[in-house]
Amino acid sequence: MPRLLDASINRYRGCWVSTELPADSSTFHTDLAHSLALWQADGIKVVWLTLNSARAALIPIAVTHGFDFHHVAGDAVILTKRLQSGAIIPEFANHTIGVGGIVFNARGEILVVIEQHDKHTRPGHWKFPGGAVDKGELIREAAIREVKEETGIIATFDQLVGLRHYHYGQFGTSNIYALCRLHAVNNTITPCPEEIFASKWISPEDYLACDTVIEFNKALLRAALYHHGMPTLEVGDLHGIAPAEYELFAAAR
Amino acid sequence: MPRLLDASINRYRGCWVSTELPADSSTFHTDLAHSLALWQADGIKVVWLTLNSARAALIPIAVTHGFDFHHVAGDAVILTKRLQSGAIIPEFANHTIGVGGIVFNARGEILVVIEQHDKHTRPGHWKFPGGAVDKGELIREAAIREVKEETGIIATFDQLVGLRHYHYGQFGTSNIYALCRLHAVNNTITPCPEEIFASKWISPEDYLACDTVIEFNKALLRAALYHHGMPTLEVGDLHGIAPAEYELFAAAR
Repeated sequence: MPRLLDASINRYRGCWVSTELPADSSTFHTDLAHSLALWQADGIKVVWLTLNSARAALIPIAVTHGFDFHHVAGDAVILTKRLQSGAIIPEFANHTIGVGGIVFNARGEILVVIEQHDKHTRPGHWKFPGGAVDKGELIREAAIREVKEETGIIATFDQLVGLRHYHYGQFGTSNIYALCRLHAVNNTITPCPEEIFASKWISPEDYLACDTVIEFNKALLRAALYHHGMPTLEVGDLHGIAPAEYELFAAAR
Repeated sequence: MPRLLDASINRYRGCWVSTELPADSSTFHTDLAHSLALWQADGIKVVWLTLNSARAALIPIAVTHGFDFHHVAGDAVILTKRLQSGAIIPEFANHTIGVGGIVFNARGEILVVIEQHDKHTRPGHWKFPGGAVDKGELIREAAIREVKEETGIIATFDQLVGLRHYHYGQFGTSNIYALCRLHAVNNTITPCPEEIFASKWISPEDYLACDTVIEFNKALLRAALYHHGMPTLEVGDLHGIAPAEYELFAAAR
């Protein structure tokens, strides 16, 4: 006798199937067919199925029942099946976030680098240190960490001065690049040899006059030099999320 | 005789296996084992495997060969296997992007809404219209589209006035919420009944004095009212990407 798979229903009439699934493919096949029919009769709109690598043998069976791949979470693939046509299935994440730091020292100079992978293809392409925001990391934390990793410079966060958005990231993702103004605590650059080909302090005037620097970076430096960006604001809990667990940058001054 | 699977090598010594794969599971099993041994001997660091739903039967075989799920792209799951310990595998997208619009009319009033799903749980939670940035859409386009869809108000983009970042999105994703200042072209609100419970024009003074509005939204309104945010800048092509295909917001004035 086929059995109804264990599942929970969310407020959108979506059905999340429990990960406690039959290990045997044939049993899963019959139980899934039986469950889908009951759920459909019950008005469920979308079925969500989580199959980890230990249950990878069940993936082809889910596909034969009309499930589509939705996203990967850790060790598992999450699949979905609409039981009502036109039912809304929210998109998974499609953006990566990067940061750059325009770091000023006490003499008013800025910290610039040439990356190893640019040294031949883009000679003289001086840019601001930076990199990807890790999962679970805030933008202001990532800017400080990346500057430290790439150059050994310890810096404090001041404000957000620019934001670039485009759709040409790795794996077909989109990307946001957040440019932050930072202030250096130390002056001695210790570049990371794997990532950094060259690094130096330079006066803003010399950077703006440099022919091999792209206009994009010059525009961001002018923003950091001459205008007011967005510092972080603290406005208390946000729907139960404590101030330390989120960041809000807003126009000020 | 097992055959070497067709593949291309990228600049990081990563090997992308062609999607032209044996349909037969047993052939795939022997060909994959043979290929992995040759690639490892050849110094390949990471193998990337794309299996679409028509090849779902090959997924359990890839898993038995030590492949991990990396991400979903359209109809396919992409899996990876390190051939050298410690080899770097870049993370997939982990952020969704949302927008909000602080829309001013010619009388200096702002457009606020109460969403259907807040009407019972957060009564009087007047907020700015907005929603998710679609794949391939720019932030300034999404702000204009969401305001139009939710309220019927046609607006033009002025500047970015705030940015919120946290890690409490759907499916374990992180989220960025970009608040934009817009200017309304028309005045008659036509709310979308599925999404919007209530909508109105309100003076900034009355909004700031309203007890049921959260401090987060008041801080953003003050930013939009009293400070200079980040307009979009045009700085020409960016590494081959035309100005119309990306957006740069930077501190100005």
